[in-house]
Amino acid sequence: MKKLVVVKIGGHVVDDEQALSSFLKQFAALDAAKLLIHGGGKMASQMSERLGISPQLVDGRRITNQETLKVVTMVYGGLVNKQVVAQLQGLDCNAIGLTGADGNLLRASKRPVDKIDYGFVGDVKVDWVNKELISQFIGLGLAPVIAALTHDGAGQLLNTNADTMAAVMAQALSKDFEVQLVYCFEQIGVMKDLDKGLVFNRMSKENTERYINEGRIHSGMLPKLENAFRAKAYGLKDVRIGHYTALQALVNQTEGTEVL
Amino acid sequence: MKKLVVVKIGGHVVDDEQALSSFLKQFAALDAAKLLIHGGGKMASQMSERLGISPQLVDGRRITNQETLKVVTMVYGGLVNKQVVAQLQGLDCNAIGLTGADGNLLRASKRPVDKIDYGFVGDVKVDWVNKELISQFIGLGLAPVIAALTHDGAGQLLNTNADTMAAVMAQALSKDFEVQLVYCFEQIGVMKDLDKGLVFNRMSKENTERYINEGRIHSGMLPKLENAFRAKAYGLKDVRIGHYTALQALVNQTEGTEVL
Repeated sequence: MKKLVVVKIGGHVVDDEQALSSFLKQFAALDAAKLLIHGGGKMASQMSERLGISPQLVDGRRITNQETLKVVTMVYGGLVNKQVVAQLQGLDCNAIGLTGADGNLLRASKRPVDKIDYGFVGDVKVDWVNKELISQFIGLGLAPVIAALTHDGAGQLLNTNADTMAAVMAQALSKDFEVQLVYCFEQIGVMKDLDKGLVFNRMSKENTERYINEGRIHSGMLPKLENAFRAKAYGLKDVRIGHYTALQALVNQTEGTEVL
Repeated sequence: MKKLVVVKIGGHVVDDEQALSSFLKQFAALDAAKLLIHGGGKMASQMSERLGISPQLVDGRRITNQETLKVVTMVYGGLVNKQVVAQLQGLDCNAIGLTGADGNLLRASKRPVDKIDYGFVGDVKVDWVNKELISQFIGLGLAPVIAALTHDGAGQLLNTNADTMAAVMAQALSKDFEVQLVYCFEQIGVMKDLDKGLVFNRMSKENTERYINEGRIHSGMLPKLENAFRAKAYGLKDVRIGHYTALQALVNQTEGTEVL
């Protein structure tokens, strides 16, 4: 099977012009079929503030009301997505910027209201990924750059967690490609010792539960690891978490934390 | 040759939610390969105002400084483009939202500074349209929805006139398709008598010059007609200007002004 690298970039990379540019150079240089998934970092919150819309977060998750959805659509789907695509084009990487709505790449269902009404947030399933179209794009030599937005198939855009979106896309595509899923963020992996700069080279589900109980792994890392474990269990070749400046080394499996 | 309808929608349609929804129903129902090109109407100016950026216009053309380019990228490339795509998907039209940067669909050159510095504005040529990729998308059953943004191939997004973009795309695709180019706006055609609601059924270049001298055709209509005449002269099957609520009749060549 042909190799496919699915890369997810998070907040700090998108927010920092220099970091983004350095990351994109490495992404463009990757010698494999590739797909990039991004959110919009703090830019969406900043834009909301400039427009007088207060961002609402519950458990680190954005509450997406009508106005916030507009901001997210503008910032993720417009500003970040198109700037990334233009930069990649300048680096001879034939990028194409998309959302889950485009070509019906990823349908979602609006999250049901339970204790919290998350608003226009979409939950996704592996089966809802339009892997045929993504494969066709890759076959045309395109590198899809996908903003973390989906749609309900009935005209409504939905905000979707970028980590989850990367996981379900990687999973769906693993039927046709040898998929490596790389989560890039602002740390060199799952940290064993932050002061000494030591990472876990490998992380099992069992150890994760122990480290959570010991308080060594917490907050933002949890949903990322959850998605990573689910993707690995689905049969991906390599699932890895690491620093956005080390993309090539992560792809070479010489850095970051390998998720078991 | 296979038929292809290239439709350009302008300001009033995009600004008015009901008008847009009624237009999109007709667009989705068109029984032909199709491509939609849009700008962002007054929404970009409104967004600039909300963000405290004063919109600058010279001769009806937007001056695109760095901040304005960001707004245009958010509004045209993000908000409008993705809302249109999601709505079309809800109408069973397999739309894909793009800009000229995506898949290098349309490269442009930054307009040289002469008397006026237009800023980040891109001028385009028929030869710069990536008609192979557009044809491939159409072959996959996709309906491209293209925001009036281009790129310089070196990492810079550029703002491009949507009328011109529609014309050059229609021209480039006329080598592989029987192309009809339809400019949809808020009037039923080039008006012969605005009070009586009469349109010119046909408009020649010679008559246009006469009507301009007589003051009967002016301002916003001029660049539209210029683009339309250039496209028609290139060998398009039908070039037509008319009302956005009459898309089906325009495609049937029973309404609007035919450009000769």
